[in-house]
Amino acid sequence: RSGEMAKLTQLIDNEVFRAYATYTTIVLLKMMLMSLVTAYFRITRKAFANPEDTASLGKGESAKKYLRTDPDVERVRRGHLNDLENIVPFLGIGLLYALSGPDLYTALLHFRIFAGARISHTFAYLIPLPQPSRGLSWAVGYAVTISMAYKVLKTALYL
Amino acid sequence: RSGEMAKLTQLIDNEVFRAYATYTTIVLLKMMLMSLVTAYFRITRKAFANPEDTASLGKGESAKKYLRTDPDVERVRRGHLNDLENIVPFLGIGLLYALSGPDLYTALLHFRIFAGARISHTFAYLIPLPQPSRGLSWAVGYAVTISMAYKVLKTALYL
Amino acid sequence: RSGEMAKLTQLIDNEVFRAYATYTTIVLLKMMLMSLVTAYFRITRKAFANPEDTASLGKGESAKKYLRTDPDVERVRRGHLNDLENIVPFLGIGLLYALSGPDLYTALLHFRIFAGARISHTFAYLIPLPQPSRGLSWAVGYAVTISMAYKVLKTALYL
Repeated sequence: RSGEMAKLTQLIDNEVFRAYATYTTIVLLKMMLMSLVTAYFRITRKAFANPEDTASLGKGESAKKYLRTDPDVERVRRGHLNDLENIVPFLGIGLLYALSGPDLYTALLHFRIFAGARISHTFAYLIPLPQPSRGLSWAVGYAVTISMAYKVLKTALYL
Repeated sequence: RSGEMAKLTQLIDNEVFRAYATYTTIVLLKMMLMSLVTAYFRITRKAFANPEDTASLGKGESAKKYLRTDPDVERVRRGHLNDLENIVPFLGIGLLYALSGPDLYTALLHFRIFAGARISHTFAYLIPLPQPSRGLSWAVGYAVTISMAYKVLKTALYL
Repeated sequence: RSGEMAKLTQLIDNEVFRAYATYTTIVLLKMMLMSLVTAYFRITRKAFANPEDTASLGKGESAKKYLRTDPDVERVRRGHLNDLENIVPFLGIGLLYALSGPDLYTALLHFRIFAGARISHTFAYLIPLPQPSRGLSWAVGYAVTISMAYKVLKTALYL
């Protein structure tokens, strides 16, 4: 089976694919960070969604008051959902794009701008920065994904 | 490295893989469209989630009244979340299915029905059409994904 | 084109990739199950989000009372969203990890622990079990994903 392994290793040795692997891992790790930020705000703001999460804060009615929404927690959750809505298309379309034979320079440009846009989006959402900071970051990532989708359809279209 | 590139290109040259690439890109673009529809309803209904988004509509208390939920906005958001819940499994299971060696006709049938079902689901949700239109569209896409998962497990099972 | 097919089949014949295919399909099917659980609770608790879903329960005002949130429905929905937030990173990072040439034993260990953690998380959320059951299940799956991301970046880093 070492022959097969070699072929798999060749995929990860391809520079465009390595760039895709790197930037995809970065944006997915960034998205995962949102879970920790949510947990941080839930604990510091004492705002939980599940009764079992408030058990350590007191018994019965005294714990019930921590079952509430908090503006900071909700803000992080909206940022997290926006990540899902935008990083899932990047994950799929980016993979197909990486396999569609783009040149390395163009591919790196797409991946770097997307990663930069999503990191900016998170800062714009969490600080928060005045609009249109968040809107623009979102739009840049969106446009990069559309551009990759165009290349995929141009190369692979089979209806 | 041209040898590696050739191998990558062969992947995207395979007809089943090209069909997967095409339909995955289509359903992901469709899902991305939901962001634009949400933005459209947020702006026309003046219903925003973040204080910084209402800054252009007035200062202080006068802008605060636009921080509200709107039934049309919430409807699109539910449709968007339903897309995520169903297109993410298609993205993963569909890729593995495309690599599991299905015949082209069967694969195209799966991909086309899934894409049709998700597009119908969106129309049924946004118009909205009376039930069971939305429920059936959802169920058809769900069943196609289960069918592909069965083929993947039959071909690749390694626990 | 049989030569290309052979190459694709080789990918699915690789043991690490087959293990990835198997466990990814399992966790995605588990996530899809959350839709059925949500539907079950919506119907038994009579708690719907869309007016068209309550049409069969009566006309006009009498059906309107079923447009409401229910604690059990909301609990399943939170579990479903938590699946999305954690299984999407596994889907992407796990694929890249499987292609980064890990040894079979280590890869199986990662995939099995992740799948076990997410299944435990669902039981902990839906029963519900007292904390820290759910928190620990979540943390174990999170740590496994970080470990795979580390291997991907170590092998493929190309910025």
